[in-house]
Amino acid sequence: MSRERGSAAARGRAGKAEELGPRLEATRRLSARLAEGLAAEDQVVQSMPEASPTKWHLAHTSWFFETFVLESFEPGYRPFHAKFRELFNSYYEAVGPMHPRPQRGLLSRPAVAEVMRYRAHVDAAMQEFLIRGAGEAAAARIELGLQHEQQHQELVLTDLLHAFAQNPLRPSYREATALPSAPRPEKGSQAAAPARWIGFGGGVGAIGHTGPGFAFDNELPRHELLVRPFELASRPVTCGELAEFIDDGGYHRPELWLADGWATARALAWRAPAYWERHDDAWFAMTLDGMQPVVDAAPASHLSYYEADAFARWRGARLPTEAEWELAARGAPAAGNTLGSGALRPLPARGGGGLEQLVGDVWEWTASPYAPYPGYAPATGAVGEYSGKFMCNQMVLRGGSALTPDGHARVTYRNFFYPAARWQMTGLRLARDVTDA
Amino acid sequence: MSRERGSAAARGRAGKAEELGPRLEATRRLSARLAEGLAAEDQVVQSMPEASPTKWHLAHTSWFFETFVLESFEPGYRPFHAKFRELFNSYYEAVGPMHPRPQRGLLSRPAVAEVMRYRAHVDAAMQEFLIRGAGEAAAARIELGLQHEQQHQELVLTDLLHAFAQNPLRPSYREATALPSAPRPEKGSQAAAPARWIGFGGGVGAIGHTGPGFAFDNELPRHELLVRPFELASRPVTCGELAEFIDDGGYHRPELWLADGWATARALAWRAPAYWERHDDAWFAMTLDGMQPVVDAAPASHLSYYEADAFARWRGARLPTEAEWELAARGAPAAGNTLGSGALRPLPARGGGGLEQLVGDVWEWTASPYAPYPGYAPATGAVGEYSGKFMCNQMVLRGGSALTPDGHARVTYRNFFYPAARWQMTGLRLARDVTDA
Amino acid sequence: MSRERGSAAARGRAGKAEELGPRLEATRRLSARLAEGLAAEDQVVQSMPEASPTKWHLAHTSWFFETFVLESFEPGYRPFHAKFRELFNSYYEAVGPMHPRPQRGLLSRPAVAEVMRYRAHVDAAMQEFLIRGAGEAAAARIELGLQHEQQHQELVLTDLLHAFAQNPLRPSYREATALPSAPRPEKGSQAAAPARWIGFGGGVGAIGHTGPGFAFDNELPRHELLVRPFELASRPVTCGELAEFIDDGGYHRPELWLADGWATARALAWRAPAYWERHDDAWFAMTLDGMQPVVDAAPASHLSYYEADAFARWRGARLPTEAEWELAARGAPAAGNTLGSGALRPLPARGGGGLEQLVGDVWEWTASPYAPYPGYAPATGAVGEYSGKFMCNQMVLRGGSALTPDGHARVTYRNFFYPAARWQMTGLRLARDVTDA
Amino acid sequence: MSRERGSAAARGRAGKAEELGPRLEATRRLSARLAEGLAAEDQVVQSMPEASPTKWHLAHTSWFFETFVLESFEPGYRPFHAKFRELFNSYYEAVGPMHPRPQRGLLSRPAVAEVMRYRAHVDAAMQEFLIRGAGEAAAARIELGLQHEQQHQELVLTDLLHAFAQNPLRPSYREATALPSAPRPEKGSQAAAPARWIGFGGGVGAIGHTGPGFAFDNELPRHELLVRPFELASRPVTCGELAEFIDDGGYHRPELWLADGWATARALAWRAPAYWERHDDAWFAMTLDGMQPVVDAAPASHLSYYEADAFARWRGARLPTEAEWELAARGAPAAGNTLGSGALRPLPARGGGGLEQLVGDVWEWTASPYAPYPGYAPATGAVGEYSGKFMCNQMVLRGGSALTPDGHARVTYRNFFYPAARWQMTGLRLARDVTDA
Repeated sequence: MSRERGSAAARGRAGKAEELGPRLEATRRLSARLAEGLAAEDQVVQSMPEASPTKWHLAHTSWFFETFVLESFEPGYRPFHAKFRELFNSYYEAVGPMHPRPQRGLLSRPAVAEVMRYRAHVDAAMQEFLIRGAGEAAAARIELGLQHEQQHQELVLTDLLHAFAQNPLRPSYREATALPSAPRPEKGSQAAAPARWIGFGGGVGAIGHTGPGFAFDNELPRHELLVRPFELASRPVTCGELAEFIDDGGYHRPELWLADGWATARALAWRAPAYWERHDDAWFAMTLDGMQPVVDAAPASHLSYYEADAFARWRGARLPTEAEWELAARGAPAAGNTLGSGALRPLPARGGGGLEQLVGDVWEWTASPYAPYPGYAPATGAVGEYSGKFMCNQMVLRGGSALTPDGHARVTYRNFFYPAARWQMTGLRLARDVTDA
Repeated sequence: MSRERGSAAARGRAGKAEELGPRLEATRRLSARLAEGLAAEDQVVQSMPEASPTKWHLAHTSWFFETFVLESFEPGYRPFHAKFRELFNSYYEAVGPMHPRPQRGLLSRPAVAEVMRYRAHVDAAMQEFLIRGAGEAAAARIELGLQHEQQHQELVLTDLLHAFAQNPLRPSYREATALPSAPRPEKGSQAAAPARWIGFGGGVGAIGHTGPGFAFDNELPRHELLVRPFELASRPVTCGELAEFIDDGGYHRPELWLADGWATARALAWRAPAYWERHDDAWFAMTLDGMQPVVDAAPASHLSYYEADAFARWRGARLPTEAEWELAARGAPAAGNTLGSGALRPLPARGGGGLEQLVGDVWEWTASPYAPYPGYAPATGAVGEYSGKFMCNQMVLRGGSALTPDGHARVTYRNFFYPAARWQMTGLRLARDVTDA
Repeated sequence: MSRERGSAAARGRAGKAEELGPRLEATRRLSARLAEGLAAEDQVVQSMPEASPTKWHLAHTSWFFETFVLESFEPGYRPFHAKFRELFNSYYEAVGPMHPRPQRGLLSRPAVAEVMRYRAHVDAAMQEFLIRGAGEAAAARIELGLQHEQQHQELVLTDLLHAFAQNPLRPSYREATALPSAPRPEKGSQAAAPARWIGFGGGVGAIGHTGPGFAFDNELPRHELLVRPFELASRPVTCGELAEFIDDGGYHRPELWLADGWATARALAWRAPAYWERHDDAWFAMTLDGMQPVVDAAPASHLSYYEADAFARWRGARLPTEAEWELAARGAPAAGNTLGSGALRPLPARGGGGLEQLVGDVWEWTASPYAPYPGYAPATGAVGEYSGKFMCNQMVLRGGSALTPDGHARVTYRNFFYPAARWQMTGLRLARDVTDA
Repeated sequence: MSRERGSAAARGRAGKAEELGPRLEATRRLSARLAEGLAAEDQVVQSMPEASPTKWHLAHTSWFFETFVLESFEPGYRPFHAKFRELFNSYYEAVGPMHPRPQRGLLSRPAVAEVMRYRAHVDAAMQEFLIRGAGEAAAARIELGLQHEQQHQELVLTDLLHAFAQNPLRPSYREATALPSAPRPEKGSQAAAPARWIGFGGGVGAIGHTGPGFAFDNELPRHELLVRPFELASRPVTCGELAEFIDDGGYHRPELWLADGWATARALAWRAPAYWERHDDAWFAMTLDGMQPVVDAAPASHLSYYEADAFARWRGARLPTEAEWELAARGAPAAGNTLGSGALRPLPARGGGGLEQLVGDVWEWTASPYAPYPGYAPATGAVGEYSGKFMCNQMVLRGGSALTPDGHARVTYRNFFYPAARWQMTGLRLARDVTDA
């Protein structure tokens, strides 16, 4: 991956200035709440180079406000600690040197308590700054910082899940936290109702952000493009369907796979989605509630792009392009099974009409490589590194997941990961061409 | 890259059946001629996993005809050697097991002489087969085999260049071969005339192959898309311009680079294009004529996508999309400085009007990830692995190079390599948006 | 290295049975005390595969008593946690599967508090067991467990130092603990008095453990061997002398190095002992008191065997064999600057007569590969894996260090590490042949 | 390994000066003869970093005479090619830079014919030099060069075997050469007569070279040591016995293995000696005659130290130390199944009385790490790098193999390889302690 990001520049207007203070407080509080109840030990571990320790996330999001707001706009601001500039710089070359990413897990200090003091220091300085009144540029940066912190809230959870999954004790995140538990699906083996194909006409359409709300710079500029008629499945692919793929030898049939995908699957001995384990006759999966039976009717998750692509080929379908996805999703409700639901996992579709589960549940891999929109220009300065420099070798995902903070994602939102990534809550929705009868 | 390919399916008509025999003979002869005069030793070396020994190329192209034509369409055909099915299978999973690619250079046997006997065996069987008359399907496969062999002719040369470049003796390919020498540019330090910007209007256009000639399946289907007005440089970026980029610190300024590109450039200590070396005050580069002074006016070559992208950013420009390139190139002459010129290197532009050097000289990196065209479907059977399974993680290049066999490339031709690849003859042409005054 | 060991079999008599209880309690308490004051975060980090997290050491030493004493000799003993058998098995194949060593740092659970409960559980069970009276075999195992735990006490400190040294904040272990601080050398730049050569005659001598006290099985059997007359330096090589080696280009002169050492030093860019850093005109070194000026008169430490060997060659000397060392040391006082001194670092020699600093300060690399003594036989059962299986590819060190628990080392004690290891407190003492005038 | 060596300094007298010319000619001719009949392609391949291409061996041995004799002792000598000083320097840091060892196989040039011209050039210069009369120092260097070339003769064959074994065609070296074929053992499944134990008394003995003949510096100085009574097996372990070890699960029982050996065997999936393959119910092994049935009565070969050690432990025995081996072998006949026999493989023992097969058949792993003898001092100058710098991490082997040139090995001869090496013709002979009844 290449994330700890949001997106460089708020091209749309930021939220109203008078709301920034309360929103800042609420967002910052949520981050801290996600770590509440965790042992200090849980917050140190880095289980792979792509993941980061919880306390690193908590510190880095504070660093973001410190570096890009307070140091830029608050004369006389004194950083909390001289070394933090380097320790918690994720990837901003323009800011200066950075602690190597794969070595974040070697840092026992600053300890969690010190990180929380760092957060409090930054929070206090930010509120003081806001009281004196932030100008337009500062407000835009604060908005960016909020969105950025939301992205890291999701990463806190996905990275913890990955770390816990390495532990033979299979710890449960939930038990350790104050988060309420959601009702769980009752039976693991109940299949979902079949997905329906929903058709969309072709022609010239426009995608990309428009209007007054916030958007990352990679959602801009809004632009027109030409699509052909297509159909989308009414809901994401389910665990039950994925199990059929496994049973049909899907992980052993090279003709279903991209070459790089096949090589990856061989090298890493993939036999099922990440976190799935076979016990006797049933599939179980590691979740934030520990090891749980796989729920057939729920969307399949923790799939790489390669698996998503292979599954689609197996079904005689394909993945949608991001343009198709966005055009189809336009106007759909922005609410869904996101972080606030407390489920912390994808849930079965309700089965009503139309496209379901567009927002929340699982990020949906699209067939679109992550590339700049026509006319794209990154912001100037260090925050210009937010999105643009990652526009190579990654694939776009759409829609948000059960771990995405409420209200964070939108239909124009472009998430992106390397095609081999599996530790995010990633699934797929099928698409197909409309062919004349 | 992942090439030793052509493309699976001839969707357009193949060449006329009665021409196949002579074309086959000529193409096969050219392959052998490229290896003439080489020491047997030169034909064994594999200098990196992505490259292959000359004799492997010579054997694999024969294997292609043997496997996909003779074994498929010639009842009773007996393979030359039972083990060759595995030894010279490049990547066709449907054909069966294959010798690991990184270990091709461990095979001293079959020796060159045995490979030439293999070629003669296949050639004789193919001519016999043609005399009896090939049906439409077989003719299409033969056409594919011819195009495939042409692709390997270019790879023979690029792989040899890479191998020779590892040798402190800096051997010259040319001296060893029967190929005539082309006139060389007279002065290394004469700069090219500045490139001009040539404008193209926006709107709906169509790209992809059409008409009766051969095309690889990745050039299909022809389809419409929407482009915005744009400008292309009249010629590729030159070595002199690239030297300015170096002098301006281009290889040390992260703000110019994609994140993956910067990481690659750091890890591999890139300071200049591949094969460039600084001696005293001048740049030299390893070529098929050995180490030679860099010619300022000639197109820069042996650049990765990352370097091409960084150079464009440095110039305040960008790379063209493949659609822009193809729409602009439509109608341009298909001839250029290709293999038949004997130059074996990019030559300075002549400086006439219009777009120059579209075909030949250097493959031009585009901003387009290699992806299927809307409605793309690979051929069925093993040859379906020709193109489609590589449509991930690679970038499209257009135009052909000084090492591309004459007549092989077309304006709809899609070449593709991983963005870090530098051993192909790859350069770039600048593009930019048209903005209202 | 391959240590978390002591040595399988107490061939000598174990300590008196009635003393085992109090010694056990004291030893276990010291381990806990070493971790007191550390943040929980400090106890999770694994900074390289060869090192282990503090809490892993604390758990593993409990596992040792649980597995090799309680499960073996206490009928009906119930293990604290079913999974711990695997999680805290270091390398005993006969016990069963083990959690992969390089992944010890991925385990946030059991948290420190749970590990301390594990320790308490085992301690209580052990004391109960002792009250009922341990037989001879059990007593020998308990003795082994005590010695084993002492070895891990040293590893706790060396592993923490390594972890802290990776942290740009350069934390101090001392500040966090209840350990008293020792007086520090007053001036960093005061050189030690020159070492004197002390001669020893040749002939047949005997080395190896004898007598009633405990010894690891690798110290047995005591045996005779023939040595030639030799001389040993009166004290270990100092930091000041090591700095001269650096100034004389020692790290850049291949003729001084073993081939494997030179390759290692090149690959890892060694320019000074581990933990040394140059600031302006002075050397500093990371210690358990944080970054400190290098003390010229103190023994050089954190040297690999390769560096020790190269230094000796530079001085026209050599390393002693372990037989020479032991024969010379016989009868020397067993006390020295060990853990109980509270210095936590090597201190300057006092400069009195005779061999100084044999025990404590720094482990001294010998020229002897770690190999079995003639007639060596490991213990039977799983504890037979304690020493014998590591007798290849490692070098013997003698004497103990400033981090070795008091009373743990003896003149027959054989420590061993891979020749490239530098994170232990390892230095050298010069030796030379006696040649006739 | 770390060989391309012989040993730096002829401490004994070299052969008589007037014999040097004819011996030089004969030795150089044998090297060329070993490559006769090979395809040029066979001489280029480097199948692993530890092995070298045939033509590299042929060039390097010439470089040795050129660098250490002609350039040192022949005023006005002009090297054959300026770049060869670097290309064919194996590891002599004092001579200057060297082409990286793992990249020897990337050099197609100089081609074999050019290498043969290089050899002829050096041979002519050497004979001219000898005609004018070589002084004592030069004669000693020539002697060293001869011994060095003999070492490379064995390496030519072992490296070719390794390369051929990577090729699914399993080529035969023999068919390509002028070497006569030896009579082959008649039945693969005939077991050898049981080995007998032969006893040797303990006490002070002397090992190391003495007398007028040549010896490498690592055989010096001759010195006394103390050994305990021991027994040696009358012959090396056979293939049939090794097959029993396999059948008894030897490769799956960690308790038989050294820790490093077990890790290596797991990582590399060892299930049998190198080059062994199971077909149906029988073992076959790759040899210089291609794939052949394993001969039960012949010595087992291509074993690592780890396997040799594990086998010995399985049999309740151990490996001999090099001192035991040498003391036992003293006075034994120096002839055996060496290169001149033409067998090119170990042959069954004849079964007569006494120690058999000490010289030839298989190099025998000893329990002795390769270390300097007491008082050892390498030669001065670049040839001082011949032996001494490798005295770490390797194990001593004794006796010579079926590929060792006749007359090359002696009872004092110390061969050495890393314990994981298997591509040399290496086996073992059992030893055991004598215990009082």
